[in-house]
Amino acid sequence: MKPLASFSHLPQGFQAAGLHCGVKADPAVFDLALFVSDRPCVAAGVFTTNLVHGAPVKVSRERLPRTTARAVVLNSGNSNACTGARGIADARWMTALAAEQLGCFEDDVLVCSTGVIGRFLPRAPLTAGIPAVVAALGAGADSLEDAARAMMTTDTFPKTSMREAKLGGVTVRISGVAKGAAMIAPNMATMLAVIMTDAALPTDEAQAALRHAVDRSFNCISVEGHMSTSDTVLLLANGAAGHAPLAAQDQNRFRQMLDEVAAELARAIIRDAEGADHEITIDVRGLPTRGEAFRIAKAVADSPLVKTAIAGADPNWGRIISAAGYAGVALDERDLTLRVNGNLLYQAGAPVEFDAAAVSEGIRGQREVHIEIDLPQGTESVRFWTCDLTAEYVRLNADYTT
Amino acid sequence: MKPLASFSHLPQGFQAAGLHCGVKADPAVFDLALFVSDRPCVAAGVFTTNLVHGAPVKVSRERLPRTTARAVVLNSGNSNACTGARGIADARWMTALAAEQLGCFEDDVLVCSTGVIGRFLPRAPLTAGIPAVVAALGAGADSLEDAARAMMTTDTFPKTSMREAKLGGVTVRISGVAKGAAMIAPNMATMLAVIMTDAALPTDEAQAALRHAVDRSFNCISVEGHMSTSDTVLLLANGAAGHAPLAAQDQNRFRQMLDEVAAELARAIIRDAEGADHEITIDVRGLPTRGEAFRIAKAVADSPLVKTAIAGADPNWGRIISAAGYAGVALDERDLTLRVNGNLLYQAGAPVEFDAAAVSEGIRGQREVHIEIDLPQGTESVRFWTCDLTAEYVRLNADYTT
Repeated sequence: MKPLASFSHLPQGFQAAGLHCGVKADPAVFDLALFVSDRPCVAAGVFTTNLVHGAPVKVSRERLPRTTARAVVLNSGNSNACTGARGIADARWMTALAAEQLGCFEDDVLVCSTGVIGRFLPRAPLTAGIPAVVAALGAGADSLEDAARAMMTTDTFPKTSMREAKLGGVTVRISGVAKGAAMIAPNMATMLAVIMTDAALPTDEAQAALRHAVDRSFNCISVEGHMSTSDTVLLLANGAAGHAPLAAQDQNRFRQMLDEVAAELARAIIRDAEGADHEITIDVRGLPTRGEAFRIAKAVADSPLVKTAIAGADPNWGRIISAAGYAGVALDERDLTLRVNGNLLYQAGAPVEFDAAAVSEGIRGQREVHIEIDLPQGTESVRFWTCDLTAEYVRLNADYTT
Repeated sequence: MKPLASFSHLPQGFQAAGLHCGVKADPAVFDLALFVSDRPCVAAGVFTTNLVHGAPVKVSRERLPRTTARAVVLNSGNSNACTGARGIADARWMTALAAEQLGCFEDDVLVCSTGVIGRFLPRAPLTAGIPAVVAALGAGADSLEDAARAMMTTDTFPKTSMREAKLGGVTVRISGVAKGAAMIAPNMATMLAVIMTDAALPTDEAQAALRHAVDRSFNCISVEGHMSTSDTVLLLANGAAGHAPLAAQDQNRFRQMLDEVAAELARAIIRDAEGADHEITIDVRGLPTRGEAFRIAKAVADSPLVKTAIAGADPNWGRIISAAGYAGVALDERDLTLRVNGNLLYQAGAPVEFDAAAVSEGIRGQREVHIEIDLPQGTESVRFWTCDLTAEYVRLNADYTT
């Protein structure tokens, strides 16, 4: 498994670091990351909508949006979720310790944690680790990769993405890091992403642009449909590029780059999904609203029967169409057209003659599978990514570790 | 695997039969069932809410409710779903052929089919089979079991249930048969049940009582959360017991018996769920409405992470609580109490000390697992049944058969 992006650099004015401090037992595995801007940032965030969510989600959410953010401190190995009042105190304590080292206010530090649910955060390793990670800060690509590596739980590769373009007369860069969404090993949860840019953004635009990007990336992936307690995507914009006010065209270009970074990180998460043999792209087109297209795509993506059929290279269109039918969206099956890897399997309410063996061979022979559902009810569409469900996934998730 | 109920008899005035006619290839496997009343019945039905549904669902639904039903003809091996106008014509043809043999009107025959989606129904075996199954009709327990056996697809045992009681001065009986819900083998779909009684019921009461029973039985089970295209539960009441008009107490007793028959059949489906090692009973209590309790129970039941944790005998309470958190029901995790097999695992927003090894041993050592979620928000509750998710399930569903 290789990362999607070859080499990502930090935007101007940002530094990062990652190291092992001891939240995880294995000294060879990083577990603490830090992202810092040398000047105040506009910061926006999108969080899990799970009513059961970790202490870091509560603490970061109450500090956003803001215009004076300076850093994100992030640990893996313990999600500090379902830990009550002590968990909140521990999350605040992490930010206070980082702020003290960085010489900023506690409220200007955001916090994320990922790992085991329901265990109290161990303060001892972080007490030594946070000063160490501040001392390790660097602006190079290796520092960014170290930080991306320190976010990993069951991920098999660090996930970074970068885009840059001339905007407002200067080069503007967006760099993002993420960790995987699969709640795979026992108690492991969480998709986390931190996206940094040296563009200057108004607070409202930062939040709107991040929401737009997340809705078309992290919210359009599903491994097994179980929503984590800790999902967090943060955007920090520090303005260090020093561009002139952006014309509408450059504003659009920025949004497009942000969408691309988010989508590339989201796809990397699917690429790294535990036990998966296939990456599945689902296009649903021709609905009155994007929300309706989304519900159909998600019903198909979350069906264990669709996922096992793909694992078995079985062009089992009945499972796909029946999942669309229970998505809670008004549709008539006679209007639905289904293609898998470009092969027409269903149209006009009745089976279509197709070479099942050839379609199966096509699924078996490549890692990517494309499911296309077309309806004639409107002009809205959605693209959704998921993976297949294999016996290996079950084995990994049923592993007894308590 | 053994059936739940040892021996079930038909109510008075009913006959049944089951045999092999050739929809399935294996001559040793039954594939055609018939249930007949010697007099007109009040008939009610509850059907899949999937917008993509089989031709038999369309045909039976348009004939209900009615007061003159006489029979249900049912085949396995082909679900006649996603088969367009030809499928509807085929389903009607099945009822016409049965009606001709029985000497009744076509519209008084209901029809169900289960099996492969998207293949046209083979008329040749049914042309010979329907007269043969009429000739085979009998009122004995063996006839009922033959019919239950002919409904089976990947079921490993026939599912029957019976209750009887003195109501309105005479013995009234309710007998039901069902087949499994797991959409397990490729293209296999469907839960079907036919419940017969010799009680006399007004049409409205038949529909209301059936809805009540289904909401507490078949609608409270989930194998993998994929809604079938063909789910059908039918109730036929022929009044042959000849009871006096039922007093309120006897009406309630009848409803209770119907609930019990439906619940016993539903539990038998879970007991027979493909690849499952554990049957899981989920009790959610203390919500303002039953619908809210239901949504929490279903979110927990449908989470692959909860199901794989049980398969691995892992008392992984974080997965259960986080599933409750995304059920779309307002709740505060600090109010939630969780027990697994009677062991307190979570309370008051923080982890509880418990002997994880002992709880795990308890899960591993018995087939039944009990999850209890208590909230202090109201007085409504729900009981839901599901099963674990094993590598064997994935293997069965990924099997390539095209």
